[in-house]
Amino acid sequence: MNNIAAPVILVQPEKSVDISYFLQQFNRTLSTIKYGDNPAQLYDPIRYMMQLGGKRIRPVLTLIAGYLFKDNIQACLKPSIGVEVFHNFTLLHDDIMDKAPLRRNQPTVHEKWNANIAILSGDVMLVRAYEMFLEVEASKLPQVLQLFSTTAAQVCEGQQLDMNFETQNEVTIEDYIRMITLKTAVLLGFALEVGAILNGASENDALLLKNFGVNVGLAFQLRDDLLDVYGDQEKFGKQVGGDILADKKTFLQLTALIQANADQKNILTQFKDQTVYSPEQKIDEVTAVYNQLNIRAQTEERINIYFEEAIQSLDAVNAPPERKDLLRNLALTLMERES
Amino acid sequence: MNNIAAPVILVQPEKSVDISYFLQQFNRTLSTIKYGDNPAQLYDPIRYMMQLGGKRIRPVLTLIAGYLFKDNIQACLKPSIGVEVFHNFTLLHDDIMDKAPLRRNQPTVHEKWNANIAILSGDVMLVRAYEMFLEVEASKLPQVLQLFSTTAAQVCEGQQLDMNFETQNEVTIEDYIRMITLKTAVLLGFALEVGAILNGASENDALLLKNFGVNVGLAFQLRDDLLDVYGDQEKFGKQVGGDILADKKTFLQLTALIQANADQKNILTQFKDQTVYSPEQKIDEVTAVYNQLNIRAQTEERINIYFEEAIQSLDAVNAPPERKDLLRNLALTLMERES
Repeated sequence: MNNIAAPVILVQPEKSVDISYFLQQFNRTLSTIKYGDNPAQLYDPIRYMMQLGGKRIRPVLTLIAGYLFKDNIQACLKPSIGVEVFHNFTLLHDDIMDKAPLRRNQPTVHEKWNANIAILSGDVMLVRAYEMFLEVEASKLPQVLQLFSTTAAQVCEGQQLDMNFETQNEVTIEDYIRMITLKTAVLLGFALEVGAILNGASENDALLLKNFGVNVGLAFQLRDDLLDVYGDQEKFGKQVGGDILADKKTFLQLTALIQANADQKNILTQFKDQTVYSPEQKIDEVTAVYNQLNIRAQTEERINIYFEEAIQSLDAVNAPPERKDLLRNLALTLMERES
Repeated sequence: MNNIAAPVILVQPEKSVDISYFLQQFNRTLSTIKYGDNPAQLYDPIRYMMQLGGKRIRPVLTLIAGYLFKDNIQACLKPSIGVEVFHNFTLLHDDIMDKAPLRRNQPTVHEKWNANIAILSGDVMLVRAYEMFLEVEASKLPQVLQLFSTTAAQVCEGQQLDMNFETQNEVTIEDYIRMITLKTAVLLGFALEVGAILNGASENDALLLKNFGVNVGLAFQLRDDLLDVYGDQEKFGKQVGGDILADKKTFLQLTALIQANADQKNILTQFKDQTVYSPEQKIDEVTAVYNQLNIRAQTEERINIYFEEAIQSLDAVNAPPERKDLLRNLALTLMERES
């Protein structure tokens, strides 16, 4: 050893960029966001909702979409928060409408506080979501806010359709796909599109990414329908068979009703106006009909169609393949998830 | 008579511009606005709310504020709709929270449809309100949307404070003024400020007009409190004494409680936890205490303070006096209203 100082290594090893990197960037920004303080009854529920967690899929999609076109994702950070705040606003208000007691295993806002507070703090969340986009480059602001507004209205339309379906007799598969497109898929599409736009993607690439997002969203929702029936109770987190017990119109139920013979149709509908039956019996009998009709394979086939459409759009995007792999892998993870 | 055509008169007589002109411009624009169609349950309530009418004070303020600085109020038209759509959104959601059966003598949305539809169509109204600002000149868009967002959050804060006051023991006059500033006055301030900004007012003039609006709003709300007790039943439209019956913390009640002697305080509070009394008796006895304490004159004095502050701000605005008179007269009309 001698006393000569070792030269400072100026070139850092290239940072390995994976999904956790974007999640970290999102979380770091999220921790700096101030929603407001007074009155506490208005702002505490917002902080409560935002810290309940979740997979943060949508904002991560925004950041990766930005990264496809530029190393620096700074311009996408606040908007990615906007996407997540908006998503949580919809959950907050949906929970009131669905009278849901729990969200991510914690009391919902209307249970922990009350329905009025849940309505009003949700309203402020929507305002705060808009504010997250206001630092967008001036030339892009009108376009970004128009896309966000259109998406926000569509998500509300989807929620209204979902509520309508509860009492609507005739719901076609097409109606159902339209509903989940609006309620779930368009927000994933917007999350990607806005990240792309903010980091300078061409109009075509932004639209391809939006289409990727919408189709991943559709596949994701059908996967959710499938897990409700065929999921592993422990991994799924929710009660397996919950949709069956609630007579919820899902892709599985609607497909089965179309293809069922008279006997099978009787089984599928016999519990409808009947209040005395064991939940296990209902789940077992309905699942048996689904099995006879091969509903699982049919749902998986439809999931694959959407997934393939998503991948085709992604393939056509003009961006470095190793960066696009981040989105491909994220989509695959979502498809393989068991919860 | 001869055959020579009379020369076409090119110079039109100067249009007499009064408040009805701005109301007409607002209504003409409003009739062109499309909120959406499907699902009907989401968009019908928005049309219903918007056609219930009302005095349209806020959008008219926006248009006149614009007119102070430029003949052409085109740039203010859509934003004036945004102000009114936002105001009606707050009424829609407030009515759910207050369980109000009627709005402008018609069933409220949650009564005519249901609470879930009222929540969701209100959410879309807030989105549509934002959209009305998106055609604003790009250089002004961030500022306008930030002001709108700040105002929107403040209005929600005011509504939350109002709800808090129902169960809060200690509410000071200062607390009350802060509440009505947020719930009512800041939106009138914004309505004026945004019209001024859009038509090129200086920053100082825009702020003076905002201050005019906030103070008119405060005077307007105190006038409302006063009419509840001293209004002419026929002209007021609402039940005279409604605030007294509901034990509502108004400027009158809070002022009386501070100044009441022990006997008067007993009268003011004796009905609180008592369910058996005649409404007439409660109104009569409380009003008698207000009369003994000279609450009416004290409220009128406070109204005048806000009104004078408003007029001082208006006087300082650098705009043609005859145009400023439109605002002065509108404010006077609001002060003299009996409904």
